[in-house]
Amino acid sequence: MTSTTNETTNGVHVGNLINTVHAIQRQPKLAALKLRVQNKWATGPRSTATLDSFFGLCQEMHHEHPLEIYSDEPAVVLGTDTAPNPAEIALAGLSACMTTTLAYKAAGMGVELESVESEYEGDVDLQGFLELNPETEIGYTEVRVKFKVKGDLDEATIEEMLKKSPVYNTFTKPVKVKILVEKV
Amino acid sequence: MTSTTNETTNGVHVGNLINTVHAIQRQPKLAALKLRVQNKWATGPRSTATLDSFFGLCQEMHHEHPLEIYSDEPAVVLGTDTAPNPAEIALAGLSACMTTTLAYKAAGMGVELESVESEYEGDVDLQGFLELNPETEIGYTEVRVKFKVKGDLDEATIEEMLKKSPVYNTFTKPVKVKILVEKV
Repeated sequence: MTSTTNETTNGVHVGNLINTVHAIQRQPKLAALKLRVQNKWATGPRSTATLDSFFGLCQEMHHEHPLEIYSDEPAVVLGTDTAPNPAEIALAGLSACMTTTLAYKAAGMGVELESVESEYEGDVDLQGFLELNPETEIGYTEVRVKFKVKGDLDEATIEEMLKKSPVYNTFTKPVKVKILVEKV
Repeated sequence: MTSTTNETTNGVHVGNLINTVHAIQRQPKLAALKLRVQNKWATGPRSTATLDSFFGLCQEMHHEHPLEIYSDEPAVVLGTDTAPNPAEIALAGLSACMTTTLAYKAAGMGVELESVESEYEGDVDLQGFLELNPETEIGYTEVRVKFKVKGDLDEATIEEMLKKSPVYNTFTKPVKVKILVEKV
């Protein structure tokens, strides 16, 4: 045994992480996760995203309490600045995912991290959204990420771990998004 | 004149929207937006993303107050379920962006929307993140989106508008993400 069930590293219960890995190795369909969001528009750029149910380990589950993320725009983009804008929320998801990935991967190697801080800057050219130039990309054209890590891992290993982040891969690779529209 | 400066449609100040479009047409560099996130790891899957400064209309700006998005994981993914998980946050960003895009595009056409609700389901195969199968995609493999719209637009026009969402394009097209790691 390389771990006991009570050990945590980086706040991650390593015994449970190993058990999960072994369970998925025996039964790969346990790895299928379906994440869900419900969104309700308020007015202008204001909407509420609710996270409630999800599917994992072959069963329907719910968060302990439904969770909400509000969205707005700053005044210069015609909003009321009460909440992050949608592209900032997506970038926040990237930041959370890269950070959690590093904490889990390091824990899996038995490496304690003392601190992890990171900065993200993403470029958007509004000529795309506003349809002023058909050559302009509509989404992020580039994102720059800077990690500051205190812990016993070298830079190359950290970078390799960060590239295993699901949201990093969602940004860097094309994802099929199927849209269905219903008039009500 | 097709609008006065006091008109709002869908809560969007259409006069200001048109002024912004005209300003960018005259001076395309006004369209460059740099969005930023700072992330600080707490422990396990818990981290805080802070949205504070951004660059737009050729100047440095700040949100009225720094905004925060917390991240955690449900218990089955070894977290404490106090906040959405990173991939849910990214999906919430997609939902906010598609919703805001529709409200703005419809406003630009002078079409009032009565209600907009939408549902998102994204597939993740944890064999990718856990490195159990090199063939498995690490990020979202597919996202299904369903919009229910009450308003005077046909389904095809709504779908075309939704595809102009910056975060939709961030999901569906590859984005270059540059990583810099510093040991501290």
